[in-house]
Amino acid sequence: MTHITPVILSGGSGTRLWPLSTDTRPKQFLPLASADTMFAATLARCADRARFAAPLIVGSARHADLLAAETGPDARIILEPMARNTAPAIALAALTLAEGTAGEEALLLVMPSDHVITDLPSFLAAVDAAVPAANAGWLVTFGIAPTGPETGFGYIQMGEGLAEAAGVRQVARFIEKPERSCAEAMLAEGSHVWNAGIFLMRADALVTALAQHAPAMLDACRSAVAQAQTDGPFIRPDSDAFSACPSDSIDYAVMERANRVAVVPVRCGWSDVGSWDALAELGPHDADGNRFSGDVLALDTGNSLVVADGVTVTLAGVEGLIVVASGRHVMIVPRGRSQDVKRIVAAMKAHQT
Amino acid sequence: MTHITPVILSGGSGTRLWPLSTDTRPKQFLPLASADTMFAATLARCADRARFAAPLIVGSARHADLLAAETGPDARIILEPMARNTAPAIALAALTLAEGTAGEEALLLVMPSDHVITDLPSFLAAVDAAVPAANAGWLVTFGIAPTGPETGFGYIQMGEGLAEAAGVRQVARFIEKPERSCAEAMLAEGSHVWNAGIFLMRADALVTALAQHAPAMLDACRSAVAQAQTDGPFIRPDSDAFSACPSDSIDYAVMERANRVAVVPVRCGWSDVGSWDALAELGPHDADGNRFSGDVLALDTGNSLVVADGVTVTLAGVEGLIVVASGRHVMIVPRGRSQDVKRIVAAMKAHQT
Repeated sequence: MTHITPVILSGGSGTRLWPLSTDTRPKQFLPLASADTMFAATLARCADRARFAAPLIVGSARHADLLAAETGPDARIILEPMARNTAPAIALAALTLAEGTAGEEALLLVMPSDHVITDLPSFLAAVDAAVPAANAGWLVTFGIAPTGPETGFGYIQMGEGLAEAAGVRQVARFIEKPERSCAEAMLAEGSHVWNAGIFLMRADALVTALAQHAPAMLDACRSAVAQAQTDGPFIRPDSDAFSACPSDSIDYAVMERANRVAVVPVRCGWSDVGSWDALAELGPHDADGNRFSGDVLALDTGNSLVVADGVTVTLAGVEGLIVVASGRHVMIVPRGRSQDVKRIVAAMKAHQT
Repeated sequence: MTHITPVILSGGSGTRLWPLSTDTRPKQFLPLASADTMFAATLARCADRARFAAPLIVGSARHADLLAAETGPDARIILEPMARNTAPAIALAALTLAEGTAGEEALLLVMPSDHVITDLPSFLAAVDAAVPAANAGWLVTFGIAPTGPETGFGYIQMGEGLAEAAGVRQVARFIEKPERSCAEAMLAEGSHVWNAGIFLMRADALVTALAQHAPAMLDACRSAVAQAQTDGPFIRPDSDAFSACPSDSIDYAVMERANRVAVVPVRCGWSDVGSWDALAELGPHDADGNRFSGDVLALDTGNSLVVADGVTVTLAGVEGLIVVASGRHVMIVPRGRSQDVKRIVAAMKAHQT
């Protein structure tokens, strides 16, 4: 059995799910998509120790307690002293593993901690399909079969199939978040998938690619790991060394530049839950198309998302609304307009200063 | 100058303005229509001591603290040990005044404490017009010139003008809350006004009418007042005596039965704020037809009422919504559907038991 170490990235601190998601409790720590937090659901996805090694988590030092509260006793948690985007986070994990007993041939399954995957067997089958290519040194990404012309995701154009691994294709190119017309054209064309930021790769293949395409980043991360302090489950990379590291995404720093980059297309009920609208679309819905969480009492209400956190929300005669209520904030937008949350947060900040 | 004593009724404990209005803080104690509570605004309406004597308040013993907190040092407060509707409340006031120095010829101006009057000069002019009729022993009610075919109010059909008082007409008949078609017909006909529950009458005229039409009520109230305990501003009628009093409205018990009942029609920006929709219609509105109170941040929002009590409410792209948020409850209905509050409250009770 190939040794796969889950590397779970908990770096996000976005405000797209404000007012519930905040910098002190980002969305991966909220039980939005199910009764568990998305972080716990991500851990559960790779809990089968016959298939996966103990997980390695990379998160913010500010969230140490939140991270430790939900991880099992065998997990290790790398605490970043500051945010440097995904490439340094994954580099810290690869270098930490390369120093361990698993050696440089360890396979990393890199997963964001704030995505939903409802069809686990299909996801695991895609991971199985990716293993031979990753073992052969390919940096393998997972491409989500698109369900619509979304403009909020990057796309991957798939090229030829790999000779050495059935179901795995070379990456022809990465496409940044497209215009609507371009997204529609890619959807119609058929060989494009969404870039979900999930990867399978050998630790040493990533280190080699970093040495070639991001040497300053690799040096800084190597130094930070070499001087790391260990404290129970926590690994604390050296702050001075890591602060010198350039900030960049794994896509820009490595995937778009490296030669041997492959993609496994997969349909696995994936969502990045990147907006309240995205959560509204996630099932299960009631017979009227509603999705409620918390204490909600609704009469004659349809196609609405209501999240009640510590308060009671009552509605009557409401159609197609998103309502998110906590003890301090109540936010209301019609469905289809949850991108306005950014404007609301900006206006709130201007209002308070 | 005729001696007019304001009698302010604070008996309501309705739930039509739930979740803000509750049994422990009914709507007269909420600052909904302005920065002051409606109770304080009612007191302010008769604060001119050149025109009015010190007010006599009739309210629930449960609300003694709320009542005392907003009344001036010269006010007296009759605390009802239990609710018996408006006729006994007004009887307590009339009997209390009849025992005082003002004597039986005191004029009572009876006003609910939870109504809004935006045009005070017009209201005071109507009171002035009513004084000669009341002094002559008529029970005078004030009829609000209707602004639409409302089905939530009782109506008064006006008859002939009184010879002894210009602007005062006999009451032809009282009409209970009508069907829509009937309300439209009355509006078209032109001689009907809304019954607002505001009255001017001599104390002894009311006592005489009670003796004729509700003798058991008069006896019980007379006994309760005779055994009342006084405690600072508070007058506490005897509980045993008052509990024996029949419960009835002044309309049913007296006005619809008495012979000399008159009405002064008035346009004074009156509202009973009987629903969230009624509050939504009250000005002032912003340029987009919104009425906000509390900490509200709205983008692209129109024709909405938002009441934020201790929380922040943010909205974007919302049209024609009523949102009422307190720390514990958030209620949302479209405008025009605030009658559903009753259904919501009933469903909440069923839900909690």
